[in-house]
Amino acid sequence: MRTHDVRFPTSQTLDGSDAMNPDPDYSAAYLRLRTDAGDGIEGHGFVFTIGRGNDVQVAALRALEGHLLGREVEETLADLGGVWRELVHDSQLRWLGPEKGVMHMAIGAVVNALWDLRAKRAGVPLWRLLASLSPEEIVDLVDFRYLTDALTRDQALDILRAARPGRAEREARLLAEGYPAYTTTPGWLGYDDAKLARLCREAVDQGFTQIKLKVGGDLDDDVRRLTIAREVVGPDIRVAVDANQRWDVPEAIEWITALRPFDLAWVEEPTSPDDVLGHAAIARAVAPVPVATGEHGANRVLFKQFLQADALSVLQLDATRVAGVNENIAILLLAARFGVPVCPHAGGVGLCEAVQHLAMFDYLAVSGTLENRVVEFVDHLHEHFVTPVDVRGGRYHPPKAPGAGTEMLERSIREHSHGG
Amino acid sequence: MRTHDVRFPTSQTLDGSDAMNPDPDYSAAYLRLRTDAGDGIEGHGFVFTIGRGNDVQVAALRALEGHLLGREVEETLADLGGVWRELVHDSQLRWLGPEKGVMHMAIGAVVNALWDLRAKRAGVPLWRLLASLSPEEIVDLVDFRYLTDALTRDQALDILRAARPGRAEREARLLAEGYPAYTTTPGWLGYDDAKLARLCREAVDQGFTQIKLKVGGDLDDDVRRLTIAREVVGPDIRVAVDANQRWDVPEAIEWITALRPFDLAWVEEPTSPDDVLGHAAIARAVAPVPVATGEHGANRVLFKQFLQADALSVLQLDATRVAGVNENIAILLLAARFGVPVCPHAGGVGLCEAVQHLAMFDYLAVSGTLENRVVEFVDHLHEHFVTPVDVRGGRYHPPKAPGAGTEMLERSIREHSHGG
Repeated sequence: MRTHDVRFPTSQTLDGSDAMNPDPDYSAAYLRLRTDAGDGIEGHGFVFTIGRGNDVQVAALRALEGHLLGREVEETLADLGGVWRELVHDSQLRWLGPEKGVMHMAIGAVVNALWDLRAKRAGVPLWRLLASLSPEEIVDLVDFRYLTDALTRDQALDILRAARPGRAEREARLLAEGYPAYTTTPGWLGYDDAKLARLCREAVDQGFTQIKLKVGGDLDDDVRRLTIAREVVGPDIRVAVDANQRWDVPEAIEWITALRPFDLAWVEEPTSPDDVLGHAAIARAVAPVPVATGEHGANRVLFKQFLQADALSVLQLDATRVAGVNENIAILLLAARFGVPVCPHAGGVGLCEAVQHLAMFDYLAVSGTLENRVVEFVDHLHEHFVTPVDVRGGRYHPPKAPGAGTEMLERSIREHSHGG
Repeated sequence: MRTHDVRFPTSQTLDGSDAMNPDPDYSAAYLRLRTDAGDGIEGHGFVFTIGRGNDVQVAALRALEGHLLGREVEETLADLGGVWRELVHDSQLRWLGPEKGVMHMAIGAVVNALWDLRAKRAGVPLWRLLASLSPEEIVDLVDFRYLTDALTRDQALDILRAARPGRAEREARLLAEGYPAYTTTPGWLGYDDAKLARLCREAVDQGFTQIKLKVGGDLDDDVRRLTIAREVVGPDIRVAVDANQRWDVPEAIEWITALRPFDLAWVEEPTSPDDVLGHAAIARAVAPVPVATGEHGANRVLFKQFLQADALSVLQLDATRVAGVNENIAILLLAARFGVPVCPHAGGVGLCEAVQHLAMFDYLAVSGTLENRVVEFVDHLHEHFVTPVDVRGGRYHPPKAPGAGTEMLERSIREHSHGG
């Protein structure tokens, strides 16, 4: 196991600036797993952070080393559900969350690296590996602890079995047409009006049918920027807004109400990502504007409650926030159970590369539909990855290379390693 | 700033064993702040953990050093509300939570160490320092972000002003009689029946009017142990049970229903500490058995929701789980607003020493009452502190030494430092 503290100086250009994050330095607490199989194959995973504290996240990765060293490779990769339980329920490490924050995200990076290793050894991209598993194999990956009041193992099996018919057709369609994307590239708060207008125009020209603007800094600015965006993209392009947790509940309701004339595709992260009841109150007050959240959703228990409380109508899971692929499968199943579309969060460093696999797996094997589904796309830092995303015509085209998409170029790791 | 990874080998005696934590090694990620004032006074704080991962918690403390070095001491201590906001809203570090887990607890240790420093410089114990502040000074310590749908600054001021009359009498009573405690010493799962019976008898002899037993391992065992405990203590001693997050919602309801004949003072942590809606469902189903939780409550936003949803009727704040004294004041104010008693979690390493100050402050300046209030007491590891708790006759007697109670003996730090 090797770890790296990789940081990119994105704050210099205000890429990624929003109402809560004025100067992010997109970073990755990065992990490489090697085996003695002699095939040279490594499993790579990471936690995305925005700069300071990336070293703390690396320390958390290191704390998991004892769970990995000396294991049998085949056996470990054949039981990733068991490995997940062992890591997440380590009773001493669990105290540091439980199941949230630095320690939980570190487990996610390890789990994702193990999936990367398994997919590479199988010679297939992760989305295809996951979709090839039987319903029984898939539910074995999921820990239903704390979920059974909303989703049992049997209910999950029913969902997966119901999604089997038509899968070959869906896969053919996915390969031919790709998975719908939307772009956040135009909408960062740090960009001036001219840049905003130019990037909106480019987004439409590139084939995107949805864009997203950051809001929440200043209401007058938001109205002006949304006016510009709507003028440029016209009435048929969907325009979402993202407040990045900027508001309290009463303020969110007022602000969103003021932005309602712009026909919003959704309002994202209106308040604290922990506030299930707050989101539910906002959703009721601003209906029919859909409320979206999830990129900071700490674990499956939180998502369960958001769904139970009708507190979101767009679920935005993230590849590196929860404990990896397994927990995201639990979240996909919960969303399917409640009939809520999953529109994953991406951007940052490598999040697009990673999360596309989950969206494609969802289409093939869980929800079975593309309706109201889009994966976020931000055109930053893809050049640092061995298999960068292939986004053309406003759609993610399925990766064909083996693995989970999480492998960064050796040179990028070296050149951007922090503190030496 | 100096940090220490302090660990005690408590797993060897099964002290602290429960249904989720079979072998805790009580530990502290420990922090000492020095100034150049020349008075030799240091501020001490820590995060309590149960072993593995204590090093990750220390790394998180180190990540905060940049916020502390080079500050003016007087100015910093005079504006601990401002310091809290600066630390918690550091936009890059915030990404690692937000406001939860390793990074948030590290901020708590820094905040608590600053309070320890301030109280020592003022020559008073923390409880008295806090109680001496005006309502305006107290609300300045609180960040109302994400709370205003349940508690505004003005409402908090009203609560504090309403608690002013009678304070001198309450302080006299507190000094004379102490603050009620309950003991968890008899109830660890790792103890055999004879030890359980003996410790229950000792607890009553020592003057405790409430004990607590760990449950959730096996229902038959729980029934047998509760039968023994009830026989020993009789009908007048309150008996609480603690499941340490062991159950799913449906299982919790069944299990608690089976234990109901034992006249439970409360059932603690029946399920995931993040599950507001789950606790609310359990509370409705097992009424009138009170549901208690909070020691793993990640932040004030979670507590707000528990109160809004009637999901707890005993609020168990913890001295080192959230971001320190300031956030715990927010939680005390929320509890007062909803009329719910606060019965702090303690035990571990130094949690009793730290949290008693908050309970006494609550009695003097916030809720103004002792009704249905008890602070947990566990008789472990107090000998490692400079000013160990003074618990006699089943009550915490107010500490008189200056500071927050968080200073460990130099020798204990040295002898129990992990990995050299």
